[in-house]
Amino acid sequence: MVTSDVAARFARSATERDTAVLSTAEFHRWWARRCEVDQFQVTPIPFAELDGWHFEAASGNLAHDSGRFFTIEGLRCQGDAGREWTQPIINQPEIGILGIVAKEFDGVLHFLMQAKMEPGNVNRLQLSPTVQATRSNYMRVHQGSRTRFLEYFLEAKRGHVLVDVLQSEQGVYFWRKRNRNMVVEVTEDVPEHEDFCWLTLHQLLDLLKVDNLVNMDARTVMACMALSFPPDRPPAPTPFQEALLRSYDPAYGGVHTPTEIISWFNERKAVSDWRAHRIPLRDVAQWARTADEIADADLSRFRIMAVRVGAGNREVTRWSQPLLAPCHDGLAAFFTRNIGGVLHLLVQSRSEPGLLDIIEMGPTVKLPAVQDGGADREGHSVPFAAELAAMEPERIRFSALLSEEGGRFYHAQTRYQIIELDESFPLDVPPAYCWLTVHQLMDLVRHGHYLNVEARSLLACLHAVS
Amino acid sequence: MVTSDVAARFARSATERDTAVLSTAEFHRWWARRCEVDQFQVTPIPFAELDGWHFEAASGNLAHDSGRFFTIEGLRCQGDAGREWTQPIINQPEIGILGIVAKEFDGVLHFLMQAKMEPGNVNRLQLSPTVQATRSNYMRVHQGSRTRFLEYFLEAKRGHVLVDVLQSEQGVYFWRKRNRNMVVEVTEDVPEHEDFCWLTLHQLLDLLKVDNLVNMDARTVMACMALSFPPDRPPAPTPFQEALLRSYDPAYGGVHTPTEIISWFNERKAVSDWRAHRIPLRDVAQWARTADEIADADLSRFRIMAVRVGAGNREVTRWSQPLLAPCHDGLAAFFTRNIGGVLHLLVQSRSEPGLLDIIEMGPTVKLPAVQDGGADREGHSVPFAAELAAMEPERIRFSALLSEEGGRFYHAQTRYQIIELDESFPLDVPPAYCWLTVHQLMDLVRHGHYLNVEARSLLACLHAVS
Repeated sequence: MVTSDVAARFARSATERDTAVLSTAEFHRWWARRCEVDQFQVTPIPFAELDGWHFEAASGNLAHDSGRFFTIEGLRCQGDAGREWTQPIINQPEIGILGIVAKEFDGVLHFLMQAKMEPGNVNRLQLSPTVQATRSNYMRVHQGSRTRFLEYFLEAKRGHVLVDVLQSEQGVYFWRKRNRNMVVEVTEDVPEHEDFCWLTLHQLLDLLKVDNLVNMDARTVMACMALSFPPDRPPAPTPFQEALLRSYDPAYGGVHTPTEIISWFNERKAVSDWRAHRIPLRDVAQWARTADEIADADLSRFRIMAVRVGAGNREVTRWSQPLLAPCHDGLAAFFTRNIGGVLHLLVQSRSEPGLLDIIEMGPTVKLPAVQDGGADREGHSVPFAAELAAMEPERIRFSALLSEEGGRFYHAQTRYQIIELDESFPLDVPPAYCWLTVHQLMDLVRHGHYLNVEARSLLACLHAVS
Repeated sequence: MVTSDVAARFARSATERDTAVLSTAEFHRWWARRCEVDQFQVTPIPFAELDGWHFEAASGNLAHDSGRFFTIEGLRCQGDAGREWTQPIINQPEIGILGIVAKEFDGVLHFLMQAKMEPGNVNRLQLSPTVQATRSNYMRVHQGSRTRFLEYFLEAKRGHVLVDVLQSEQGVYFWRKRNRNMVVEVTEDVPEHEDFCWLTLHQLLDLLKVDNLVNMDARTVMACMALSFPPDRPPAPTPFQEALLRSYDPAYGGVHTPTEIISWFNERKAVSDWRAHRIPLRDVAQWARTADEIADADLSRFRIMAVRVGAGNREVTRWSQPLLAPCHDGLAAFFTRNIGGVLHLLVQSRSEPGLLDIIEMGPTVKLPAVQDGGADREGHSVPFAAELAAMEPERIRFSALLSEEGGRFYHAQTRYQIIELDESFPLDVPPAYCWLTVHQLMDLVRHGHYLNVEARSLLACLHAVS
């Protein structure tokens, strides 16, 4: 099948160490130079100073004057056991493109990555896909210049599509936001530009270990690249890595069949009472609007704020916009366990009100704040959070502080971790959890609405430790 | 993989002709007897005579007194080119179960089918899955007796799950209705009951050719059973059937790769401007409510009515309920063409406002009325409808008049057809259409929200001509 050929080519790009067109040292020099010349300035401003945005009289929604782009609205949610709440939500009912251009150099796929500034990034520039474009963006609603390299991803494609999956983003902050995660291979010459460079998947995975360097959009596209290693691969250097590499191989199977996994997932949806619908922002209870922000009474979740942006190489050179600022850094961790010689991940069926079908598969533990250490907002104990907080450091196979979408979130960071459990950890888990192999996750991520955005980030991180 | 083993077992059940526990003659005698003893009576009544239903004062919605079951509400829709309309819609925000119990007899899988009465069926009884249960149904909201055999499909399953897919139903009539399509295999003895009998897939497929016998719920579950024929199968008797059997075999491939197909589907979603949201039934324009019905001004689409039902073997023995009555029989046809020796189906990306993601893949042609012959409700020409209307009879490989969901629709029938095109039919098709093999469709139907309910019915019909 063509699919497996592509997976073998991705795997080769993930393992080849000495074929990159740009050495890692050269990459870092290029990156340092990009940061030096960056003219990006982000200044928090009162809502009244937003250009082209207004609070709608009737609803209180914060909207763009064009009627497009995105709006800040309200959401009424019903969760487990009849729990109800309201909250602000970002609504952008459009399908955007997160696209990476790929090209072979010396037989190895390289990926065209961008040094891109986003107003919400803690560090201004992060390594991003070739193209990040909302539909408003590429239809040029806000009158910017044309998105560079967009032509590779539009209907009359100039390349060969290797990946194209419609994936969700944070369902706690976004109302049904989705993007096409795309990789398009070209054979023609691609014009050079100082903000772009070619990297192998091996280099990209290595850069995932650096805090706040590879952005969320790049991570989710990377997660959609299924990897398939040759059967005659050399043994891995450690037992953990050997179990991990076997987990990529469908020949090893898992404790559950694909049908059992989807049946478990459907059962979780069938028993769920979660509901959510949009309401006017004005009707969101317990959140107050001041001149500068919309925040919940106890400042425990997030606030809506506004910034003014000036920059040299964005589609428009000066603009202002609202952003959503989480109050804390989040925590997302996958527990992994060797079961019969094959590494399995403990996946959680997780409800988020803004997801199209509410439930997707997430990491074992997802906490809105690193320091919560075991209890959710209502004080309920979060399964496995206490175990995570008490984890011996030598069991942490991956740990990095990575940023979420800097185009909509202000200074949103999540601590991503991959944990190696020992074989004393019980295989019997609560009904909301299920053991999956990496191969099974890669099969599911070929389709939308299975793996949530944090699970996808961690799947990419897992490739980085294999 | 376990999955392919199951597909081989389904295929064996679809091809074995002489191993059925009940001969087809015995089946027909049993069926005739079921029809004889049927006590079912359905009487249209004015809305005022509905027991346990009322029109809500503020919204005008027609609702069950329990607040559950289903409601008739309004929907505001925006379609292509800014076209807007409102219409009534059935809202039942729950995931039900369509489940078939399977068991091997003499090494061949048999399926436990039910002679089930539904108030909307033109002929009262139709051949149905072992279990059809909404969540309200099996939570016993309307105080009926327990659904027989339901225990095989609930959380602590007593069997081995062969199929479990969350599939949509008619998005023109239902707001996001979905059911788990399940097949569960048991090895234990299953209690006999006069309303149930064991049939092979071969028998079931053969019965699909009989008008209004195999109900919609049985067809959609049958469509979720992927078939895989052995590589050493004998040649098929006709060139059409040989091309069809090759189309089941992934070794033959298709004109598009799986990635290209999903990319086409995502592109269709990305360029769509369709939107829909629920509104009070009172706000639906151009539909009028009388004592007996809610109908559109020109009686061209459907009407909402009410019936009283008396029956011997339903969960409750007497009840009344609203039903949706289409004004015409529908038409659904797949065009098929031999491309390089492999049969391909011409699939349409079709928008229906009540689908969770609006767009799913449907048959080549779907018309709300057989007699429309080429124009949709607004008088636009429907692609390929004229060709279908003028089709030579010898190109029609399958044609049957089959019923839609009799629990919610009154006398809703669709003419299902499979057409064999000749090789003069162009391979280049408009952007909303794509050529897929049977194997590719079977791969997609393992997941929800790809194939719509008419495409699934036709996929089952296609198995019947192979």
